[in-house]
Amino acid sequence: MSTVASVQQQKAAAWFGELRDRICAAFEAIEGEYKFGQLSEKPPGRFQRKAWERPSESGEDYGGGETSILRGRVFEKAGVNISTVYGNFGPEFAKQIPGAAEDPRFWASGISVVVHPQNPHVPAVHMNTRHIVTTKGWFGGGADLTPVFPNDGDAEDFHAALEHACDAHDPGYYPRFRKWCDEYFFLPHRNEPRGAGGIFFDYLDTGDWESDFAFTRDVGLAFLDIYPQIVRRRMGQPWTEAEREHQLVRRGRYAEFNLLYDRGTQFGLKTGGNVDAILMSLPPAVRWP
Amino acid sequence: MSTVASVQQQKAAAWFGELRDRICAAFEAIEGEYKFGQLSEKPPGRFQRKAWERPSESGEDYGGGETSILRGRVFEKAGVNISTVYGNFGPEFAKQIPGAAEDPRFWASGISVVVHPQNPHVPAVHMNTRHIVTTKGWFGGGADLTPVFPNDGDAEDFHAALEHACDAHDPGYYPRFRKWCDEYFFLPHRNEPRGAGGIFFDYLDTGDWESDFAFTRDVGLAFLDIYPQIVRRRMGQPWTEAEREHQLVRRGRYAEFNLLYDRGTQFGLKTGGNVDAILMSLPPAVRWP
Repeated sequence: MSTVASVQQQKAAAWFGELRDRICAAFEAIEGEYKFGQLSEKPPGRFQRKAWERPSESGEDYGGGETSILRGRVFEKAGVNISTVYGNFGPEFAKQIPGAAEDPRFWASGISVVVHPQNPHVPAVHMNTRHIVTTKGWFGGGADLTPVFPNDGDAEDFHAALEHACDAHDPGYYPRFRKWCDEYFFLPHRNEPRGAGGIFFDYLDTGDWESDFAFTRDVGLAFLDIYPQIVRRRMGQPWTEAEREHQLVRRGRYAEFNLLYDRGTQFGLKTGGNVDAILMSLPPAVRWP
Repeated sequence: MSTVASVQQQKAAAWFGELRDRICAAFEAIEGEYKFGQLSEKPPGRFQRKAWERPSESGEDYGGGETSILRGRVFEKAGVNISTVYGNFGPEFAKQIPGAAEDPRFWASGISVVVHPQNPHVPAVHMNTRHIVTTKGWFGGGADLTPVFPNDGDAEDFHAALEHACDAHDPGYYPRFRKWCDEYFFLPHRNEPRGAGGIFFDYLDTGDWESDFAFTRDVGLAFLDIYPQIVRRRMGQPWTEAEREHQLVRRGRYAEFNLLYDRGTQFGLKTGGNVDAILMSLPPAVRWP
């Protein structure tokens, strides 16, 4: 690999930026059309975008990203990060990364989305896709739904959208990636799943870059299609103080998962990543009663 | 060592129970006397005590504890845990514990206190002391103050009380244990201390058990003396919504520390400890805006 991004790498990074724009536009449209439920007296939320650069001590690590956060009346906090960074893995970490033991240089680009809605009946959601290049190259990512009040319809539709995206590429993807998600988004100390699941995949390299990239795009597009549908069907549903309280308590589990177990969070914080971007995923208000 | 507690072990466990009773009584007295400030229309909080047993799969691990939580008008959430457990360390963990490589059996007893006050001008606090026995035996613990709005007077008085307790036993203790506290209660990802510090000590075994035990008692007594003084001087001070908001954001740092770095939390959760007791330390309400 080279720190000069290849045409493929440029295409992947450009896609993550395009997807960010489309997701932000979709969420702002929902904020605009919400007119009659609780909190609709608040102004519609708009994304605030902030660019950051990856600090470079050696002159070799470099890159940066943009964090977009919307604090609105449907979405209490919706964050969309994109970043493209490159540099050298430390010797210990390099051993754990495919293709990095031989040469510690890496290039990584991705998008991550986390949404914490105001209404306890609107599920929280996470979606992330990324392309990583060492002496090898692969795609990874996933999406999972975290309802406060589990609802079969929402979970089924979310899964169906991801299944459809998977099946268009390989009939083996969905069962494998769904199981991976269930295993990953699990809180062992409470012996409970984080939410209703979804898909999770990593190290995807079939040997056909264009096809893997197309699959990764389709995961993002499936999310962009289904999550706004779920939000629109639930956002008008009234909620009580007791339901809000339950939402805040369930968000505690979300914070526990992200701080105790999430590999991206742990890796980012312990390697000097951008703290605001990494912790964007934490819920805006939480209770541990 | 033996799983039958020695007279020394029984004395230590009995002390932790006695200290728990005195701390709970002191906090309930404060709840009772708070009559004129914000939230004083609420009823005075009382501790709710819950016993738990350590699950035993092998019949060899055993013990249990009591979690006491007060949700009141001065103390939004005050938790006091005592526990006495014994069993066998797993082979990997045993290597890291003094005296356990030779024989994995251990006995541990301790008290831990965490207070999150309603009023942002009243500092949060943590205190913990413990006695651990493997083929070796030692005391550990500490106390640290976490103000939302740093106040030199409170921090100085808190440190002076701990320094006094230390100096009565060894003039080297306070400087060493204060530094240890500053190093331990630090958030590297934010490059900031958790609060105003205090003391932290571990593996204390001078060869004179009675003297080490007396020091450990004095740490608990110093806490019991100074923290209620600080609460009483601050609890009547009015606060604004903006100050409350800042308190909730600062509590996010507290949750980050406990879930990302605290060794007790990580150890407890990953070895099947009592989840409610371990996570009692988490703040009742938090914001990551």
